[in-house]
This record gives sequence, C-alpha cells and structure tokens, in this order.
Amino acid sequence: MPEPIALMLPPLAVEEAVRAALAEDLGRAGDITTMATIGDEKTATAVINARDPGILSGIECAQSAFKIIDSYLSFDTDVHDGSALAADTEIATISGSARSILTAERVALNFLIRMSGIASYTAVFQKRIAHTSAKICDTRKTVPGMRMFDKYAVRCGGGANHRFGLDDAILIKDNHIAVAGGVALAIKAAQSYVGHTVKIEVEVDNLNQFDEALAAKPDIIMLDNMSTADMEDAVDRKNRSDHQPALEASGNVDLDSVKAIAETGVDLISTSKITMAAPPIDLGLDISIS
Amino acid sequence: MPEPIALMLPPLAVEEAVRAALAEDLGRAGDITTMATIGDEKTATAVINARDPGILSGIECAQSAFKIIDSYLSFDTDVHDGSALAADTEIATISGSARSILTAERVALNFLIRMSGIASYTAVFQKRIAHTSAKICDTRKTVPGMRMFDKYAVRCGGGANHRFGLDDAILIKDNHIAVAGGVALAIKAAQSYVGHTVKIEVEVDNLNQFDEALAAKPDIIMLDNMSTADMEDAVDRKNRSDHQPALEASGNVDLDSVKAIAETGVDLISTSKITMAAPPIDLGLDISIS
Amino acid sequence: MPEPIALMLPPLAVEEAVRAALAEDLGRAGDITTMATIGDEKTATAVINARDPGILSGIECAQSAFKIIDSYLSFDTDVHDGSALAADTEIATISGSARSILTAERVALNFLIRMSGIASYTAVFQKRIAHTSAKICDTRKTVPGMRMFDKYAVRCGGGANHRFGLDDAILIKDNHIAVAGGVALAIKAAQSYVGHTVKIEVEVDNLNQFDEALAAKPDIIMLDNMSTADMEDAVDRKNRSDHQPALEASGNVDLDSVKAIAETGVDLISTSKITMAAPPIDLGLDISIS
Amino acid sequence: MPEPIALMLPPLAVEEAVRAALAEDLGRAGDITTMATIGDEKTATAVINARDPGILSGIECAQSAFKIIDSYLSFDTDVHDGSALAADTEIATISGSARSILTAERVALNFLIRMSGIASYTAVFQKRIAHTSAKICDTRKTVPGMRMFDKYAVRCGGGANHRFGLDDAILIKDNHIAVAGGVALAIKAAQSYVGHTVKIEVEVDNLNQFDEALAAKPDIIMLDNMSTADMEDAVDRKNRSDHQPALEASGNVDLDSVKAIAETGVDLISTSKITMAAPPIDLGLDISIS
Amino acid sequence: MPEPIALMLPPLAVEEAVRAALAEDLGRAGDITTMATIGDEKTATAVINARDPGILSGIECAQSAFKIIDSYLSFDTDVHDGSALAADTEIATISGSARSILTAERVALNFLIRMSGIASYTAVFQKRIAHTSAKICDTRKTVPGMRMFDKYAVRCGGGANHRFGLDDAILIKDNHIAVAGGVALAIKAAQSYVGHTVKIEVEVDNLNQFDEALAAKPDIIMLDNMSTADMEDAVDRKNRSDHQPALEASGNVDLDSVKAIAETGVDLISTSKITMAAPPIDLGLDISIS
Amino acid sequence: MPEPIALMLPPLAVEEAVRAALAEDLGRAGDITTMATIGDEKTATAVINARDPGILSGIECAQSAFKIIDSYLSFDTDVHDGSALAADTEIATISGSARSILTAERVALNFLIRMSGIASYTAVFQKRIAHTSAKICDTRKTVPGMRMFDKYAVRCGGGANHRFGLDDAILIKDNHIAVAGGVALAIKAAQSYVGHTVKIEVEVDNLNQFDEALAAKPDIIMLDNMSTADMEDAVDRKNRSDHQPALEASGNVDLDSVKAIAETGVDLISTSKITMAAPPIDLGLDISIS
Repeated sequence: MPEPIALMLPPLAVEEAVRAALAEDLGRAGDITTMATIGDEKTATAVINARDPGILSGIECAQSAFKIIDSYLSFDTDVHDGSALAADTEIATISGSARSILTAERVALNFLIRMSGIASYTAVFQKRIAHTSAKICDTRKTVPGMRMFDKYAVRCGGGANHRFGLDDAILIKDNHIAVAGGVALAIKAAQSYVGHTVKIEVEVDNLNQFDEALAAKPDIIMLDNMSTADMEDAVDRKNRSDHQPALEASGNVDLDSVKAIAETGVDLISTSKITMAAPPIDLGLDISIS
Repeated sequence: MPEPIALMLPPLAVEEAVRAALAEDLGRAGDITTMATIGDEKTATAVINARDPGILSGIECAQSAFKIIDSYLSFDTDVHDGSALAADTEIATISGSARSILTAERVALNFLIRMSGIASYTAVFQKRIAHTSAKICDTRKTVPGMRMFDKYAVRCGGGANHRFGLDDAILIKDNHIAVAGGVALAIKAAQSYVGHTVKIEVEVDNLNQFDEALAAKPDIIMLDNMSTADMEDAVDRKNRSDHQPALEASGNVDLDSVKAIAETGVDLISTSKITMAAPPIDLGLDISIS
Repeated sequence: MPEPIALMLPPLAVEEAVRAALAEDLGRAGDITTMATIGDEKTATAVINARDPGILSGIECAQSAFKIIDSYLSFDTDVHDGSALAADTEIATISGSARSILTAERVALNFLIRMSGIASYTAVFQKRIAHTSAKICDTRKTVPGMRMFDKYAVRCGGGANHRFGLDDAILIKDNHIAVAGGVALAIKAAQSYVGHTVKIEVEVDNLNQFDEALAAKPDIIMLDNMSTADMEDAVDRKNRSDHQPALEASGNVDLDSVKAIAETGVDLISTSKITMAAPPIDLGLDISIS
Repeated sequence: MPEPIALMLPPLAVEEAVRAALAEDLGRAGDITTMATIGDEKTATAVINARDPGILSGIECAQSAFKIIDSYLSFDTDVHDGSALAADTEIATISGSARSILTAERVALNFLIRMSGIASYTAVFQKRIAHTSAKICDTRKTVPGMRMFDKYAVRCGGGANHRFGLDDAILIKDNHIAVAGGVALAIKAAQSYVGHTVKIEVEVDNLNQFDEALAAKPDIIMLDNMSTADMEDAVDRKNRSDHQPALEASGNVDLDSVKAIAETGVDLISTSKITMAAPPIDLGLDISIS
Repeated sequence: MPEPIALMLPPLAVEEAVRAALAEDLGRAGDITTMATIGDEKTATAVINARDPGILSGIECAQSAFKIIDSYLSFDTDVHDGSALAADTEIATISGSARSILTAERVALNFLIRMSGIASYTAVFQKRIAHTSAKICDTRKTVPGMRMFDKYAVRCGGGANHRFGLDDAILIKDNHIAVAGGVALAIKAAQSYVGHTVKIEVEVDNLNQFDEALAAKPDIIMLDNMSTADMEDAVDRKNRSDHQPALEASGNVDLDSVKAIAETGVDLISTSKITMAAPPIDLGLDISIS
Repeated sequence: MPEPIALMLPPLAVEEAVRAALAEDLGRAGDITTMATIGDEKTATAVINARDPGILSGIECAQSAFKIIDSYLSFDTDVHDGSALAADTEIATISGSARSILTAERVALNFLIRMSGIASYTAVFQKRIAHTSAKICDTRKTVPGMRMFDKYAVRCGGGANHRFGLDDAILIKDNHIAVAGGVALAIKAAQSYVGHTVKIEVEVDNLNQFDEALAAKPDIIMLDNMSTADMEDAVDRKNRSDHQPALEASGNVDLDSVKAIAETGVDLISTSKITMAAPPIDLGLDISIS
C-alpha cells in the first residue's frame, strides 16, 4: 500500500488565493518603501524561522507568494506540512532579488502564521486524546474565503475534516427535525432526496432521539451537548446494534473537556475552536542583503 | 460639526466578499439538508443573540448574507457596529422563508463571530490604556483576503488603523535602513520618491537611531522593541524637538505590557494580536419555524 | 413530512452562469439587428412553446436571462422544472419591451433546450426501468462549465446524481487498485484517508474482486462492464452479506440494455449518455409586437 | 499562397476555459481518491485512444488540462485538430506523475469527447453534400459558455461558422421585418445603422419576400423553411440578378434532407443539429503506472 | 420604419465597467474624507453642468455610477447621448444622500468627460465633411479596456465604427499581402478562410494595388496614405467597375486635411485622432447640501 | 544610498491589464486575418519605433503583450521607461512567430502610445517650471480602469502623483467644508477620523480660508483657482508660520499659466491635463517577415 500523502492542497487553488492576497497587500502602487530604498540590483538571502514550537502548515502557500512575485527566487525547504517544528527551526531559505523577497514577505508569513496556528492547536487537542481512538474534527465555522486552507491546516495537525460546505453531506439539525416531524421522518426525507454518494448525519440531543435515529440508519449520529454519561450510553447502544454509524460528539469541547469526551468511545469530536480560536504561531523572516 | 460615522465599510466590497463566502459554503449543490427536509412554503423568524458580552462588528455583512440569498427576507436590528453588547443581547431579527434563513445562517455568523471578536479584543486592549492618550492600532498581519474587514473591526473596537497595504504609506524597516546606508539616508530616499500625499514612517531600535530619525523629519517614528525607559526618553526628546512626528510603539505588546507602554507617552501602540489572536465572540441564531 | 422540492438550483449560481452566457452572446456591441430595426418604445408579448413532448428543466435560467436583460419584463409560467410537457405546451409568457425580449431570447432558449433535453432523455431511461427499484444516475462526463446544470437536469428527469467532482466522494478505479496493491488495500487506504462524511465507492470487474470488495466494507460497489448473470450473482452475494453497500452498474448502458441490467437487482445504473448524448428538445419563442 | 491553418483557437481562451473546468471538477478538496491511493512518487504513461472513427477536435484543450495541473507532464501527439481518426487511433501520449495524469484525465476527455463529436457530426453532414458547392454552417444554438469551442469544432469538421453573437453581423428575422414595415425597410434601417465592416443578412419565407430582399441588396439572404423547388427558384433569380448575395438555407435540415437542399444551389445550409445534437465520440485513456 | 436608436451600449457592460471604476477609486477604505466630514443624514441636490459646448456621451455610465453606490439616489436628465450641448447646459440632476453623491461623483464625471470629449471631437471632424457623403470612422487605437465605450462615443458624435477587434472583420495589411504573395492572393486566402458573415477589407498603397484588389472583389478597400489625386482616381475606377466595394481613406487625417480627403468621393475616413487625441469636455458637478 | 528605481509598476497588475486588453481585441475568434494569410511557420523581426520625440512609458506592458500571446517571442530593448526618446528611436525589437507578433501588435502599441503620451506631456509641463522647485502632479481625473497606468506614466514624465483614490488620503473640498461648518472644523473632523498614516489636505479659495487652514495644521493646503498674487501671499504666510504644510496650486493650469504659478513658490501644481488631454505619441511597428 502506498503511503498516502494527505497533506496536499488542490492544484490551482493555492495560486488563486495567494495572488488575491498579494493584490490586497500591493494595492495600486506596490511596495513603495522597498522601491524607494532598495536598489533593483540588490540580492538577499532570507530564512523563515519558527520561533515557537508547533506543526507546520502552509509551506506551499508561502512558496507560491515568493514565486508569483518573482519566479527567479529560489525557495528551499527540508520540512513538510504536518512536520513538528521545534522552537527556532529553520523552515525555508529564499534567495534572489532583495526587492522581491521584501515585497512577498508579509503575505507568505500571513498564510504560514495562521495555518500553522490551526495545525498546532489541532495537534494539542489531538494529543490530549491520543490514548483513545477518537479524532478531533473541524466544523463550517471558518474565516470567510479561507475554508479550504483552514480545513487543510486541520489535517496537517492530525485532525479530520467535517463536510466542506452545505452541499457535500447532509447534516440534519434541530430545526430540520422539528419541521420534518421528527428524527426518523427527517432521516427518511434525506435518504429519499440525495444521491447514493452522499452521507447523512443527524444531530440528537438525548438518548430517546438517539434511539430513534439509530433505527433510521443514518451514516453518522451527532451527540450534541450531551453529558459524558449519556454519550457512554449512546456508544453502548450503538455497539449492541446491527447498524454501526459513526458517533460524533459536539458542544462544550475545550482542552479541559476533550479527554473525558473522547473516553466515552465516540469516534469524532468536532469543535470550532481549532479554526476560530487557534493562537497564531510565531514565525519570522530574517534577511541578509548583499 | 457633523457626527462622523466612522464605522462604514466601503460600498461594493461587502457584497463581493459575502457572495464569495456564500459560494464557498453552497458549493455545487446548495443546502441539500434544508432542501430535503424543509418545505418551500415554510416561514420562520430567527434571532441572532450575543451569548458573550463584547463589541459588535459585521452587522452589514450579516444582513448582506441574508439579503443576497433572498431579497424578500426582512432583517431588523437596533444595534450598530461599534455598540457594546451585554451578554444575551438580541442583535437582529430575520423573518421570511425558513429555507433562506437556514441557508444563509452560517456565512452571516462567520462574519459576525470573527469581526466582533476582533472588535471586542481591540476594545479590551484600548480599555487598559484609556487613561492615556495612546491608541491601539493594527498591522498588516491579517487573514489573507480579509484585511478590509479585519481593519474595519479594529475601528469598531475603538482602535486605529495602520496602513492598509504596502502602497499607501512608507514604512522603513531595518533591512531598508541597512541597504540605504542608515536611517537618515533611507528617510531621504523615501522623501524624494513618494508623492506629497504619502506619509513616511521609520522604525528604530534605539535612541541613537531615534535621534537620527528625528532630525530627518519623518511623519512617524516606530519604536521597535524598546524598553519603556527608552520609550519615555524618546517621547521626551520628541517633545523638546521642533519636529513633532507621531510615535508608535511596537513589539512585545500584550494585555500585561500595554499599560506601561501607553504610559510612556507614545501616541500609538501597534500589535498583530488584535487581528490574529482575537478570541471569537459567541453568537447564535435561534430560529422558530411556522 | 414536508414535500421536498428537489428541483432547486443553488442560489447565486444561476445568475452567474446566465450573465456569462449573455455576455458571450452580446459581445462588444449588443443586439445590433434589434437596435437597428425595432424602436425603443415597442412592446411585445412572447410565448415559449414546447413543440416536442418531454420533461421541463431550466425554467429558472430562462427567467433569469430575461430579467437580467430587463428587470421590467414580466415572466409568467404555470409549469415547474420536472413537469411532463405534452407537445405544444405553453411554457412561459414574457411581456414588455420588444427589444429586451429579442435580445434575451437565444440565451434563454439555449439553457432550456439543453437542460430539458437531458431531463427528457433521463426520463426515457428511467421509464424503461420503472418496474424495478433501480435508478439511472449520471457521471462526471458533462460539458465543461455546465456540470451543475447538467446534474440538475438529470434530477428533473427523475434520475439520481453521482458525485459532483473529484472531491466529494471516493471512487476507486482500476488504476488506483493496481497501485494500491489490490481491492482491499485500496479501500483501506481510502478509509484511513478521508473524513467521516465522505462515502467510498470501488469499481470491480469480476466476482472475485467483488468478494474482496464486499469484505472491505465500502459504501458502494460499482460493477463495471459485467454480464447480467454476474451482476445477478453479485446482487445475490450482497443480499446474503452482513454488509449492505449500494450496487451500481456501469458500462454498455443504452436504451436497449438498461432493462435487463435493472432487473439484475442493482440499485443504480450510471451512464454518460444522459448528459452527453441527450437530443435537444424542440422549443420555440413566438412573439407578437405591438 | 500560404496554407492557412484554420484550426486555431484564439490564444488565452483555452487556458481560461480549461482552468474553469478543472476548478469545477476539483472542487474544494481535489482528487481525494488519487491522493489516498497513489503515492506521490508514482509515474505513469497514458494513451488517449479514439475507439470510434471520427474527426479530432480539442487536442489543445486536452493538452492544456494536463499542463495546467502539472507543467512537468509531457504530452505528445502526431495528430491535429481536423484530422480524420480511424477507430483505435492513438491520439496522444502523456507521461509523468501518475497523480497528475489521473487528476486531469476527465476534464481533458470531456473537451475532446464533445468537440470531436461536433466535428465528426459536421463532417458527416458535409460529406453528404460534397458533390455540391454548399457548406454546412452552425447557428447561435450552442451550449452556454462553450460557443467559441462549439464553433471551432464545426470548423474542424469542415463546416463554416455563422455569426458568433448578436453583435458581429446583422440577421433580420420575421419580427424585425414586421416592426420595420417590410423586408426592404428593415434592410434599409440596418444599412443606415451599422458600420461598413458589418454584413447584413435577411431571412425570407417566400419568393415574394425574396424578390423584395434581393432588390434591397443585403449581403446574405436566408431562405427559411422554403421548399426545395422554391429554393431552386430563388437561386435562379439570384443568378439572373446584378446583386449576388450569399444564399443560406435554414429549417428542417437533417441527414435525410440535406442532400436535396444542397442540390438547389444554395451556398450555405445552417443547422443547430451539428452543435446541439452531435453524438459524443468514444475516447478513452489507458494508463500504465510504474 | 422605426426610428433606430443607435446610441445604446450593450446591457451588462456598463454596470461591469462602472463597478470596476468605482472599485478602483474607492480602494480598501472608501471615501474617507466624506465619511469624516459629512453626516450620514445629510441630503443634497447636485447638477452636472457642461461648461463647454459639445456632444453628450456616457450619460448611462454616469447614472450607473450613482445608482451602484446608492440605489436610492434619483437621477433625472432631459438630454440623450448624441445631443448637442450648449455651454452651461444642465445635463442631469441627482438628489439623495450627500455622502453617496460625493462618493460617486468622480467616476461618473470621468466617464462623461472622456466619452463626451470623443463624441464632440468626432462631431467636429464630421462637420467639416458634412457637404460630402463621407463618414469619419474610428480604428482599433483605443485605450485598453475602454474600446466598447470609445466606439460608442464615436457613434454619439455622428461617426461610424470600424471593426471592434481582430475577430469581427478581415483587414489585410501590407505584411499579410507580402507573405500571401500579393493583393489578389491575400484576398483569395481570406475569402476561403472566413465564414459568410464576415467582411473582407484590404489596404492598398497605390493605384496598381488598387486595381488588383478591385478585381479580387473584397468588401472594402482602404486607400492608405495616398494623395488626394490618387484617391480621386481610385474612386473613379471603382465607379466604372462592376464591383462596388466601400472605399476607406486612411493616413494623415487631421482637421486640416479631412475636407479635401472627403471631397475625393471616398465613403469613409478612418482616424485614431478621434479616440486617442480628443480633448476632454469640461463638465462639473455643483452640489448643494441641506 | 541606492539609486531608487521609481519607474516600476506593481507586480501582477501589468499582466492582468494586458490580458484583459488582449481579450478585448481578440474577441471570440482571434486574429482571423493573420490566420487566413500568414502560415504558422513564418517568422519575423519587428521593430517598435518612436516617430516623434518624447518620454517613454509602458515598455513593460508592451513586452507583456507579446509574451502573453507567445512566450517564445524574444523582446529586446535598450531603453527604460522615463528615457527621453529622439524622433526615430528604436524602442524594442521583437523576434519569433510572425503570427504572434501581428496578433499582439495593436495592444502593445495602444499601451505605449497612451502612456508615453502622458509621460511626454507631463515632461513638457515639468520643463516649463524646471527653474522652480515646483512639481507637476496628477489628479483623479483618469480614464476608468487605467488609473494605475496613467499615474505611473506621470511619474515616468517627471511628475508627481496625487492620491490614488478616495481612500489613501483626505482631501477636504468646499462641500465638505460647508457641511462641517468651516475649514477648521472640517480639518479637526478629519484628524479625529483617520489613522496616523493618512495625510490630510484641505482646499481653500481665498486667503482668509488659508489662514484658518494653516492654523489647523493640515499636511497639505490646496490653493484652488487663486490669483498668482494671492498664491504668493499664501506662500509667504506659510513661510512665516511654525507649521509647514505642502502648498498645492490647482485650477486653470495650462502650458501658458504654469510658469507663473510655479514662480509663486508653491510646491505642487496639479492638473488633469496631463492625464486627460495628453496627445498620443506616434509609434509604429515595422515588421519584416521571412
């Protein structure tokens, strides 16, 4: 079996997002400071350093920022997205026109800082539950326009992805259940609606709803804001069932609570914290101009 | 003098960003869960609630998300961006098609959660220094593609904006100084390069550089990673000078250090924390379908 | 349980595609014939007629074409996408500026002709197998740029959708199997790679592969170019198994073969014919100008 | 006289359309099956084969799909757009990263299948009338967004192009005539309206209208739904006239009727069948991974 | 015969161009001066005045700028594109939010100033030759991105349009002739290449080339940089010919030379002066805020 | 101190604008004349010549046009933007495919003609005032979509740039003053509104307003339509003040008046003439095909 390389962003998307970020930063007149003070002939070597330890994510975005500004820049790196970084690790070395390096610097670092922050924070959560078989997974609470990158960073940190949008999986929540007339009817409506390649998940609040859901055979059941005791019970009921949906815990997940939740035996623990509240990693670019 | 309404996003930009965020979330098939379970004829009333206290930012983006999905939805609100929210404040009420409300919900909240988070965290910083004349201001460390929104949220929180990109002000840093041959020469290069509508800022590390800068008459001097004692000294030297640039402190700014920095007498304190490390505010949408 | 309205295109997408089609048709100078010969003050009433019987698809696109050109045009219709049309059915009536109607006509009809053609041809296939529980479904063989519309038209015709792209479901084919080292190893690689919301399908050529696949518990097994006898055998083996994946037949599907394939007991029959070889439906616009 | 190379798509357009098609197929997460099962280091050689005979069209689009995904892929071909393909002809050989080839395959083939289908079907029509001087030509009935490619494919198949949009030639139809007050007045209105580089065509239903048109000296007269006897008469009248417009037959054109129409002596026979009803050509990609 | 309204820009194009121009002017922070100094509640009435006499062009673009910024603004006008304006004519009155009016002002005027400048300068040329049947026409020398608007303005000024791009008419120049092996061979190559809806023009330098061209029956012959005597001779030869192409004079056209050129009897006189050297018209916006 | 290279357009922007201009010119079918008459195998060498003397601007845009059409074309030049060109100077030599050169020619020249026209006209103005320390500067009166290029061309001609849009500097005009309640109040409103990196300019009509402005300490004061006597007075008052804003003259600036205005001692003279009324420079491309 080949070693899967999970940590790959879709082609084309990186270039488009990085170009947009560069356009946002360069505005209508470009890097006027650098044009005013650095001669066109100056060359430089720059090193991106991780000052904090963490998990790397976004190296392809950083490389793309430098290459889009100046395809003659060299960009060398020994690390891969998903690598654990010690503090003061050299992440990449860039050589070439001093102007080009300074012009691309901020955009390259903005991608790395945010994405590595998400990956690192995901890894912290995942480490707390490493003794269980549960996985931390993300939600649709992501920064507008950055979902592809936020979710990729979660994978870099060892987490799993929930659906990417409203269109690639069914997730039946309380309002859908209320209108559809109950858990079972909502699941049935979904089963008759979607194609065979789409998974169906349903959110339940209590064990009664859980039993109703389990009988209707969805692919995934989300246990929303349930006590760990009830979650354990749900895991137990699932284990004794013919139908084996994945169980996902949701609600009140933080670094304190996650261990107990994982120990209930659920398969997944979803939280917006890893994408919306991840502290940025501290990275810097040290440059020497010749 | 009219009351300036500072808290306005540029026309056109909101619609473009919200449309892109909706497209990201809707993907190629739209909200399949809602289409499967909620009849087209169902109507609903939804309330956006702030669960945490904080400062509101992004209400126009939220409204835009609902209106782009369905121009027949009503969106009513009593609060304005920049308003202080108590916990459990009702922010807005949306009425109309249940499907439309559920389809737009996540994008609307994603803008509000992040932008109000930035505004609220900025306000926390600003409050620490309210007894001084200093202002917290942002940097170019923002999420790619969201700079306009991040910087607007800073204003909502009572902070000030640094430059929006590489093109709308000069900021001479250590590398520019090194290549230009010194602080004074770098400032001179910038003065001869840019138009008369562009401000020039220079970053200095120590008091010797500060004196050299002050003599060269830039518009702003950034005191980078200097001790509070040195910053006080710099303020003093400026006060005794004919030239009165704005002084901006930068480096090692956090909630612990900010008070002492402000008390040195600097005019501005810039930090990436308010845009890159702001905790999201907790907002929810409660919906009742009829 | 609410009546699901399956036949809905995602918001925003229609307008974008119709605008692009209008721009393609209007070019740099617009409808010069109409501007030269029809006075600005002329009004008209136009009726879109189905000359052939069939299934309607694309009415929202047609309406959008007229409305984008001129928001004052009225567009009235009694029929819905998915409706069966007798020959010579009136589909819609448009009233307003004669110039506007003539300018938008071709783009409106081009969407309707193609989409209704796909819907109608899908329905012909589906009707052949109505006595079974099988469903016709589409593939990724669609016209570049039109996938969302092609797949929607399939749903209008009573067919089901396969995955929308490379990213929303796993489909393991012969090359993946060969590299992965076999059916079971490929499925295992996929299971460990993707998130819990993603379904896994595997393509098999023969009953040995089928057995290996069944044991590895994918969500869907595609029976590719197998004889109806072998397909019956596969259905039988699945029925006797603990694991109940959906079975999808593929290869050599046409109007002659589809009945026998459906009668094997497979759940789905996928074919590119419904999107790539659907005859256009014959529609016309009759206009009277006053 | 140089050999004109008619079969060239405009620069820039191919890349834009192929990028859009790849984005449509890759979605937000890319080719997850290939990433899960094929190691990054695997290389492959793939051959595109025509299984049916026909006329090639779209080879540049196919090449572009592979090159956009991975500029290191080699793409070798001996055939040109417009070449007649025997069944089982090798069209192109692609070598390089197995992942890249599998990721680009479907988009490359979707362009080739549709465009070669149009070219081949056009050639079938053209062959029926090869003993005459008439040419098959297309219409504005094309798939939204694909007009440039549809019309190019018609040229590959030996057909001719009608106007590309509403803006590049005048085509006066029944409604324009009715409002303008008759054939002659409509032509006069057009002649006074457009620039000297624009041709004027008028559609007539009968010989009386034809005579009126001929006297008004348009560049082209379309004989719409006229009997072959009347078309012969029209050709005869034109031949005896001082004014020599091109004559274009339209309406009820199919493989059965086209020969008799061509034998009337008309110059052009326009039909939407070649773009809207062309059967796709059967192409496959055979890949061997090492 | 209806009154043709020649002066209409294609739908959709205006909005797209005006939006882009507004985005260019508003940048990342919008009209900060107006936001700082004018209260949100202020209303205003503004009048656009022509200070110079001239021909109006671009009124729809101006209206669009105000409406895109604020759909509640009223925009009233009595004049039409193509109208002759006396000095100090009121062109339009805009009422509503003072902020909105000030924000849109510059973009609205930039369109009007340039387009009315082109229209007015075209009219000056056309007036010089009003006693002949010749028409001034434009070229492809236009400002990048503005061709549709430049050419429309020419029509507003009473001029005619040459081709809009490289694709909508053939124009054989000296290099094409040289490679093709002569005037006749180049025309023949073009005739066999293009569809029947495309006109063919050939450029000739002298009377020998003219005779060769006339015999090959192009639709238009351009007399490039020929003396007025030679042009008269060419007109005469054409008048005595069976074939009646349009004759277009080109080269060294200015306000001094144009009369003599027109009096040679040519049909068209093309010059880049009307699009590249037209003086802007002087327009202003007078605003009173209440 | 390094030699600043002022004459650089921001990366990315050139390619985007040139691509759009090529798409505008190529339309839906490309350069049909060249495809019909010039064999694919023909090569050529072309030289761009300045026929008039002037200042070069836009060489990077021209190069980009050729390279985007055909990356194999060579483009060699000895001159730089900002260089003074004698009449009949060779600007660049292009070699490669004859078709590619002919296809890109017009777009390349359209950029050069306009931008060099602006640069040259700016230089004419600047030369008139070379004996003073004043600088000619531009305004926001630019062709929609071309502002970045218009303003760059001004720099090439030795002029200075005013603000790029409504967002990058404050410019308080009469209407803002009227609403704000006076010059001082308007300046105060602006000072409290904008960030510290933004300059504030105020427009005054007379010396009373000037004094009020000077006391309020804006960064720039614009003297609008004031007599040279009053301007001299204003310069004098500024020189005697503690506050040293830049003084900008505006209104009635032309080649006749500019010298006297500059001699008043103002720092800047802004005029829309350099961008809106600059005569195009005469450039041609001479091509020899082999």
